[in-house]
Amino acid sequence: MSLHDDILAMGQKARRASQELVRLSSKKKNTIIEAMASELDARREAIREANRSDMDAGRAAGLSAAMLDRLELTDSRMDAMIKGLQNVMVLKDPVGARISRWIRPNGLEINKVRVPIGVICIIYESRPNVTADAAALCFKTSNAVILRGGSEAIHSNRAIAGALQAGGEKKGLPANAIQLVPTTDREAVRELVQLEGLVDLAIPRGGESLIRAVTEQARIPVIKHYKGVCHTYVDETGDLEKAVAICENAKCQRPGVCNAMETLLVHEAVASAFLPMVAAELRKQRVELRGCEKSRAVVPDMTPATEDDWYAEYLDMILAVKIVGSVEEAIDHINKYGSHHSDTIVTADDKAAKIFTQEVDSATVYVNASTRFTDGGEFGMGAEIGISTDKLHARGPMGLEELTTYKFIIKGDGQIRK
Amino acid sequence: MSLHDDILAMGQKARRASQELVRLSSKKKNTIIEAMASELDARREAIREANRSDMDAGRAAGLSAAMLDRLELTDSRMDAMIKGLQNVMVLKDPVGARISRWIRPNGLEINKVRVPIGVICIIYESRPNVTADAAALCFKTSNAVILRGGSEAIHSNRAIAGALQAGGEKKGLPANAIQLVPTTDREAVRELVQLEGLVDLAIPRGGESLIRAVTEQARIPVIKHYKGVCHTYVDETGDLEKAVAICENAKCQRPGVCNAMETLLVHEAVASAFLPMVAAELRKQRVELRGCEKSRAVVPDMTPATEDDWYAEYLDMILAVKIVGSVEEAIDHINKYGSHHSDTIVTADDKAAKIFTQEVDSATVYVNASTRFTDGGEFGMGAEIGISTDKLHARGPMGLEELTTYKFIIKGDGQIRK
Repeated sequence: MSLHDDILAMGQKARRASQELVRLSSKKKNTIIEAMASELDARREAIREANRSDMDAGRAAGLSAAMLDRLELTDSRMDAMIKGLQNVMVLKDPVGARISRWIRPNGLEINKVRVPIGVICIIYESRPNVTADAAALCFKTSNAVILRGGSEAIHSNRAIAGALQAGGEKKGLPANAIQLVPTTDREAVRELVQLEGLVDLAIPRGGESLIRAVTEQARIPVIKHYKGVCHTYVDETGDLEKAVAICENAKCQRPGVCNAMETLLVHEAVASAFLPMVAAELRKQRVELRGCEKSRAVVPDMTPATEDDWYAEYLDMILAVKIVGSVEEAIDHINKYGSHHSDTIVTADDKAAKIFTQEVDSATVYVNASTRFTDGGEFGMGAEIGISTDKLHARGPMGLEELTTYKFIIKGDGQIRK
Repeated sequence: MSLHDDILAMGQKARRASQELVRLSSKKKNTIIEAMASELDARREAIREANRSDMDAGRAAGLSAAMLDRLELTDSRMDAMIKGLQNVMVLKDPVGARISRWIRPNGLEINKVRVPIGVICIIYESRPNVTADAAALCFKTSNAVILRGGSEAIHSNRAIAGALQAGGEKKGLPANAIQLVPTTDREAVRELVQLEGLVDLAIPRGGESLIRAVTEQARIPVIKHYKGVCHTYVDETGDLEKAVAICENAKCQRPGVCNAMETLLVHEAVASAFLPMVAAELRKQRVELRGCEKSRAVVPDMTPATEDDWYAEYLDMILAVKIVGSVEEAIDHINKYGSHHSDTIVTADDKAAKIFTQEVDSATVYVNASTRFTDGGEFGMGAEIGISTDKLHARGPMGLEELTTYKFIIKGDGQIRK
């Protein structure tokens, strides 16, 4: 069989599985998730052995220390993966919930009801724990899932997916509800995202090149989990002590993640008071500052920022700094250079807060808080499959509800249209 | 300038307009819509003159009578178009509505708020009234719109769009909030649907080839308004009198639309009682019946149905007829051959109704009612931009709410992440 036929067959099997999945009760699904978690635990040694093969191959291939770290399944990461499934088990199942209901004058009862999307394809890189997380979230919402992990984690992913399938099937997991693409051939991604009518949604999670390839090749809907070029804007009325704390948190608490701050915007009226304060604090944390010309007049020993710095997602202890003349200028900068992820204003002025939250075109807009809160757990949504930087269907943290769609179920007693 | 540059410039202008549109109040927007309606009325003669050019060109090009009919702007269609804008004016503006709000243990106030999508591109065929309808619905929801009508209606569309822009700008419509692609070059569609970062959503409305071209070329999200292969399934416990009335209505009341019935499925237990009844009634209406072998044993003078008939969207007085052994067989048929639009079961059995509504994978699933009700107006949603056969973002009739997305607005007093 060709790759095309193999992937097509996976899509067809997933579609059939999705039709069986809609019949499972929440209770039944939870029993199956519990069995998956047990099987992961039972196969712990085999999974770690598979992971060691990936680590050896990764070292031989010269993967960076950061990539090797993301790839490694330590014992505590195995624990976290198992605990993750148990956490998904206790979340409320959104499938079947009635979103709204109304009666028409002719007596028709219209129900808008939450249902699974159908078949979801998740395309991701290195971290093997995504295999378990994504499978559990899709299954909990009665979606069939096709997983496509990175080639560097193929042995780990196969071992994990094998445990989930075997554990789940003991308690009635439909065959092919969880499938892992067995090949590392790059063409498999193209074939997957062109399965119109079989795959309902693709979710790419990873670097810019992965997301761009999926978007260009896809003939099915894609929800992107793209980069985070997040801004903190300190307004002329902002509390400067709080602003320093927010900047320090947003930049330094975990600089390698998408909701960390990459650019600081400061109103010119407070620049001379604020910039030295925040520069002193950030330098204690060894943050490299790259400033615009005006800001370098206040704090001279910053590196000069170039146009590229305004677009940069450093994911590192580097911060771009710019002085602006107004909240409107801050908004224009964010909408032009940002990635529509998370941005915050520090202000005591309700009017500035209103303009900022209304006009900044981002998934999450904060007033007087750190951008680091953009996270399904921090929002109280439970587990998340990622953070959408798209606007359609799901925006911001995507939890269980965002893995569902709706249908209209309409009850009558013989109504016909006049 | 090249076509590429022209379309890029339209996208950039639309993006800037969208940033101005978020500042308009509902009241202001309604004043602008009213002015658009007045200007359409004032330019009635010029618009009809432009339409006559299109009609002449259409006749010369040998367009079918049906296409010419759809193209023609009669005086009553002008009235309906103007009334359509007035109807949109009185609808509730969904923008700014709070979808939900909760407080986190750390005091963060999370607001999920409805906001415009941004820039929407509508790609449609022949009927020139879509120009006014689509523009009004997008503007009412503070979206900038780029309209791309069919080449056969170019003069009519230009005249209508010109009236909307001129009328609206008298009352403060932002420049470029409503743009019409001025060229009939087919490549313009490709350029439009590849404007990543500038256009947020493409909605193609029209025939299969248009939708397929958009889907294949797009790098932006697409919501398809595809064909309707709608089914009526008469279950063994169905009220046969009501079933005849529903079939007659779903097939004959307006056969050329997407929510009309194309295939009738009948449970074998009632086939010998029901098929002669329904055949007699439909033949009074001159419906051609194409039956499966089993059904032709009951009503012998039906044309034999082929495999193609089960996939067919006739949009005409033709009906495919098939006998099935169970509700499950009916569901399998619908999920295999249908278009996920609208399907109905006629039954007195709550269990069969539950299985059918749960397992039929369509936007709208009815119990004991005609499929003809799938329509924004009939749902009580007011005007609709179309009926989505996709599952992501919007499914079924798309009204004003479906032209919006949401953002999270989060208010704090200095919270940082631990």
